[in-house]
Amino acid sequence: MTAEREYVEANRDALHADLDAWLRIPSISADPEHAPDVRASAEWLAAAFIRDGFPTVEIWDTPGAPAVFAEWPAAEPGAPTALVYGHHDVQPVDPLEKWVTPPFEPTTRGEELFARGAADDKGQLLFHLLGLRAHLAATGRDTPAVTLRFLIEGEEESGSPHFAELLRARRDRVASDVTVVTDTGVFARDFPTTTVGMRGLTGCEIQFHGPDVDLHSGSFGGAVANPLTALAKLLAALHDENGHIAIPGFYDSVLPIDDAERKNNAGLPFDEQAWLDGPARSRAAVGEAGFSTLERTWARPTAEINGMWGGYTGPGHKTIVPTDAYAKLSFRLVPDQRGAALRPLVQKFVAQHTPPGITATVEWESDGVAPLRVPLDSPELRALVRAMEKSFGQPVGFSREGGSGPEADLVEILGAPLVFLGVGLPDDAIHSPNEKVTLPMLERGAEAAAYLWSELASPGTHQPGS
Amino acid sequence: MTAEREYVEANRDALHADLDAWLRIPSISADPEHAPDVRASAEWLAAAFIRDGFPTVEIWDTPGAPAVFAEWPAAEPGAPTALVYGHHDVQPVDPLEKWVTPPFEPTTRGEELFARGAADDKGQLLFHLLGLRAHLAATGRDTPAVTLRFLIEGEEESGSPHFAELLRARRDRVASDVTVVTDTGVFARDFPTTTVGMRGLTGCEIQFHGPDVDLHSGSFGGAVANPLTALAKLLAALHDENGHIAIPGFYDSVLPIDDAERKNNAGLPFDEQAWLDGPARSRAAVGEAGFSTLERTWARPTAEINGMWGGYTGPGHKTIVPTDAYAKLSFRLVPDQRGAALRPLVQKFVAQHTPPGITATVEWESDGVAPLRVPLDSPELRALVRAMEKSFGQPVGFSREGGSGPEADLVEILGAPLVFLGVGLPDDAIHSPNEKVTLPMLERGAEAAAYLWSELASPGTHQPGS
Repeated sequence: MTAEREYVEANRDALHADLDAWLRIPSISADPEHAPDVRASAEWLAAAFIRDGFPTVEIWDTPGAPAVFAEWPAAEPGAPTALVYGHHDVQPVDPLEKWVTPPFEPTTRGEELFARGAADDKGQLLFHLLGLRAHLAATGRDTPAVTLRFLIEGEEESGSPHFAELLRARRDRVASDVTVVTDTGVFARDFPTTTVGMRGLTGCEIQFHGPDVDLHSGSFGGAVANPLTALAKLLAALHDENGHIAIPGFYDSVLPIDDAERKNNAGLPFDEQAWLDGPARSRAAVGEAGFSTLERTWARPTAEINGMWGGYTGPGHKTIVPTDAYAKLSFRLVPDQRGAALRPLVQKFVAQHTPPGITATVEWESDGVAPLRVPLDSPELRALVRAMEKSFGQPVGFSREGGSGPEADLVEILGAPLVFLGVGLPDDAIHSPNEKVTLPMLERGAEAAAYLWSELASPGTHQPGS
Repeated sequence: MTAEREYVEANRDALHADLDAWLRIPSISADPEHAPDVRASAEWLAAAFIRDGFPTVEIWDTPGAPAVFAEWPAAEPGAPTALVYGHHDVQPVDPLEKWVTPPFEPTTRGEELFARGAADDKGQLLFHLLGLRAHLAATGRDTPAVTLRFLIEGEEESGSPHFAELLRARRDRVASDVTVVTDTGVFARDFPTTTVGMRGLTGCEIQFHGPDVDLHSGSFGGAVANPLTALAKLLAALHDENGHIAIPGFYDSVLPIDDAERKNNAGLPFDEQAWLDGPARSRAAVGEAGFSTLERTWARPTAEINGMWGGYTGPGHKTIVPTDAYAKLSFRLVPDQRGAALRPLVQKFVAQHTPPGITATVEWESDGVAPLRVPLDSPELRALVRAMEKSFGQPVGFSREGGSGPEADLVEILGAPLVFLGVGLPDDAIHSPNEKVTLPMLERGAEAAAYLWSELASPGTHQPGS
């Protein structure tokens, strides 16, 4: 048994005490009534950093909720720097009646601790505090082996509206040799993985305008363009019969799935029927021909209709040719696609599918999010994998996230390599009632973090300026 | 000048007085608060029938608004019988602020009388009262030349929900040798026509069910069936690239447009650009290849999307794969199509376009309405055309209505030939603010009605039992 593990096991009660205290603060960023709680959460975390010895601890205000910044320099000049990213705000708790125990009264049942924020993301930040104490105790150091920075935002569950701005404004304080994101999970409890990719996102709303007034479908039907029919034809043309996106040029920048990742994916213990019956709540795995379900959600782009409406949608029937039809589309992007390059292609496709009698408008949602990929051969990823393998005692594989998040901003604005150290499980019910964290997973995370700072500081791993 | 015309011109003040009195009663059948007004309207009409000498006048209650029945037998045994159909209820008046003068304060400006119901349908019923008095005065008779019946319903503007039931229950009282519908108009003021067809109607709502919960489009998008995408593909497949409906068998019972009607239609003074700029408020005439705009709206069936919805339709964006997608469809039918025969074809088409992962439900709206066609060579139509030509002093052509109404029930339940005597104009703004009727048109209608009863009674026209 390593000294790090020994320390973590001997001090798990301190982790539980921290969890119990912090998880009682209902830091729901989406609800303005909870703004004081979000601030209290930031203050609790700042106090914990101070308690554990961080020489610099600051609460950074934003136009929204406050973030917490903490820094502990390594004693060695020229030691590598590492930034840990996470968030201290939590999701709303509705529907409250579905919680077995109240969301802000942390309750342990067996190995699991139930509370809003237990896995997403407070539990995972607290394993870092324990892990750092273990790192110091086990190595006998007074400072971490790397200059360690934490930037813990307070609006992640509200879409991180001010995070990019904060990063740009504070770039000189936070930019480090590596960013460690601690807001994800592993593929399965008995199959630890690290995330090596996330999809990007761009979205738009399309309006098809036909007649200037709703027309009587008896008097006019059959002789004027129906915008719903026209929009259905456009949306139907988005995918060909094989589920490929039919927008010319859409795949031009898509990186193929390489052999290493295909092999990795094939080895993951993915049970498609359990996925359909469980989280997907669907009756068939349907998508682009030639790709598996994991590849479809992780490594292939999408053109998804999130909403569509037009004409009469109330009870009964109203026989009209409506004036307008609308659709909200979103496109999940994969490396190296960029929203800015795809938008003109979508615009052109819409124009080509706008028939006589219809006027089209396309409105794009803000800037979108870039996709993200961790190179499988990067030294930072190798250091992370070694740290996790030492903690879990078994090989660590690779997974991706199909979703999109502020991680892309971290890469783009800070310009540093980014790795993911997360120990959430697929059944943690984040964003749902009865969110939980599995306590032994937090201990694995703490131990991995303790090793990681040593791994990053060891000469063979750290590439200055990488 | 005929004696009929002389009488009509000499008594136009009486017509105007009737209009002024009846149009002040706001008989809006769609508004329960106006139920007493609808009854007052029935009572006013019943009193007018009695005043003019009808020996039998009855108010027939229904589960909804009352109808008025009146009968005046011809003196001659074996004289033909004729039933006039119309309605005494009116449309709602919203938006009230767009009326130049109040909707229930009849106001004459030049040749036009403005009021809700002026053309649809009170003015047209009142020309019959004047026409009958002219018929009697001009022919010196004490009774009409035909046994004349009027059935004037009170719920036409609410979809005639109890009319078929009333017809079936009172069939022995109303069934006649010919039914004369007085609730339509002519193609143009200088181009009188009679209606020789209406389209039928059947409608349904389609539900496509995908995942059992709204799914995160990042985590699941690309790997499960999106019901909106699937429904768009179904709806896009309804029409081929030529605007033909692609449901197999859909056209099997469609009667071709014969040479006489093609020739008639080509001779109608139809200005497509004026139609686009005016009532159609559209930028292009779009429809089935190989047919004109008039043919598309009169003599060809449609598959129209009246409404569609699913997923997130609020402000901003929500990146989901939604659980459900819905569409309301209606099909306008032409002779000899029947809704009952088409529904299985639509069901089969939906089933064939339901992809893996999607469950489809189709719900049909009630029974639908059958299409209607007046044979161009029928003796009743020839009698009507002669009466109209004598009144208008010019040839009378044929037009159709693209809409659907209770007329199909009249044909089906009464089993008698049906003709249309209406003098509304396309710009009468029925169902809109500032509805009006052109007073000289009502005089043409009165005179045509006066001739019609003689035409129908003359041996060469009436075909007993036809």
